[in-house]
Amino acid sequence: MEIINIKSVQRVEFIDITGEIEKIIYSSGALNGLVCLFVPHTTAALTLNENADPSVKNDIKNKLESMIPRNDNYAHSEGNSDSHLKASIFGPSLTLIISKGSLVLGTWQGIYFCEFDGPRNRKLYIRIIKDNDSV
Amino acid sequence: MEIINIKSVQRVEFIDITGEIEKIIYSSGALNGLVCLFVPHTTAALTLNENADPSVKNDIKNKLESMIPRNDNYAHSEGNSDSHLKASIFGPSLTLIISKGSLVLGTWQGIYFCEFDGPRNRKLYIRIIKDNDSV
Amino acid sequence: MEIINIKSVQRVEFIDITGEIEKIIYSSGALNGLVCLFVPHTTAALTLNENADPSVKNDIKNKLESMIPRNDNYAHSEGNSDSHLKASIFGPSLTLIISKGSLVLGTWQGIYFCEFDGPRNRKLYIRIIKDNDSV
Repeated sequence: MEIINIKSVQRVEFIDITGEIEKIIYSSGALNGLVCLFVPHTTAALTLNENADPSVKNDIKNKLESMIPRNDNYAHSEGNSDSHLKASIFGPSLTLIISKGSLVLGTWQGIYFCEFDGPRNRKLYIRIIKDNDSV
Repeated sequence: MEIINIKSVQRVEFIDITGEIEKIIYSSGALNGLVCLFVPHTTAALTLNENADPSVKNDIKNKLESMIPRNDNYAHSEGNSDSHLKASIFGPSLTLIISKGSLVLGTWQGIYFCEFDGPRNRKLYIRIIKDNDSV
Repeated sequence: MEIINIKSVQRVEFIDITGEIEKIIYSSGALNGLVCLFVPHTTAALTLNENADPSVKNDIKNKLESMIPRNDNYAHSEGNSDSHLKASIFGPSLTLIISKGSLVLGTWQGIYFCEFDGPRNRKLYIRIIKDNDSV
């Protein structure tokens, strides 16, 4: 299992980690298989989305914030219940395909670590399952 | 890795792909293992939901539309920020179980390709991890 | 494939199944690999979230209910369209990492079976993919 460290600087921030994941896959020598990315936190998550126009991720963050505001009638005393719900909606785990030695992504897809309660120091765990006998 | 082509005809459309995925699993000879389905697009996603009463998927589409309308205060110029957010909420990847040569689904579950910005020609990637030694 | 039975007693209920999943992984003898958890129902789902302060899961359930109320302009005659949508948003499948013989979770993470249309008797399927040659 590989671990990468991620440092967020805003409360809500989508951090592009595509390049780091691709490097780990190349280093592993996996030709075919799966890669499972896992966030060991309860107020952060993972998603894939557009890697071209940065206004897409801003629209996503703003619309999420209007649907699930930071301040609402929450009981949890830490003041981050919105972050916990957003994390469950986006999900802590993402399983992607490795083919011919590379991570399979669409042209416009980037992998984003979604910080919902930063700034913090975070971790991401990566497990590769090689299946080099298949095509 | 297998690839299937999907053609949507509406802007928002849930297309049942269960039969096609089952055929690919039978052809693979996998007895036990996992299958990872992956959407290489940023305005489409995957979900499992009811395969019986079609009003369920209409209710889901309508409620999503009322929560995340097409027109809102979005900055992204392509006019499909709602589609990007819906895609992240449902997710681009689904990992399912293969057991005794078949895809494991509940009685009422179908696999849906979720088009959120159609009509378009789309692709779906499928990677099977066989584990035929286990039971 | 392992199967566990889950009995919900409320309409919407998050049931901590972390201990049961950990036991199944220990019994399997898997040192490294992945575990795929799968819900064969269309009105239930899985999530990871905080295992410490119970007000977190109450805030999540209450906020979800205010976003997606049980009664709205739904067409589906069974009166549980909200449950179907919540199930698709949280997702039916969760793939997690096994490392050094244990399930990998963050300090504050528990695995929750999310009942959205209880009380019911439910099932959860578990498939472990061992990869004991890797580290």
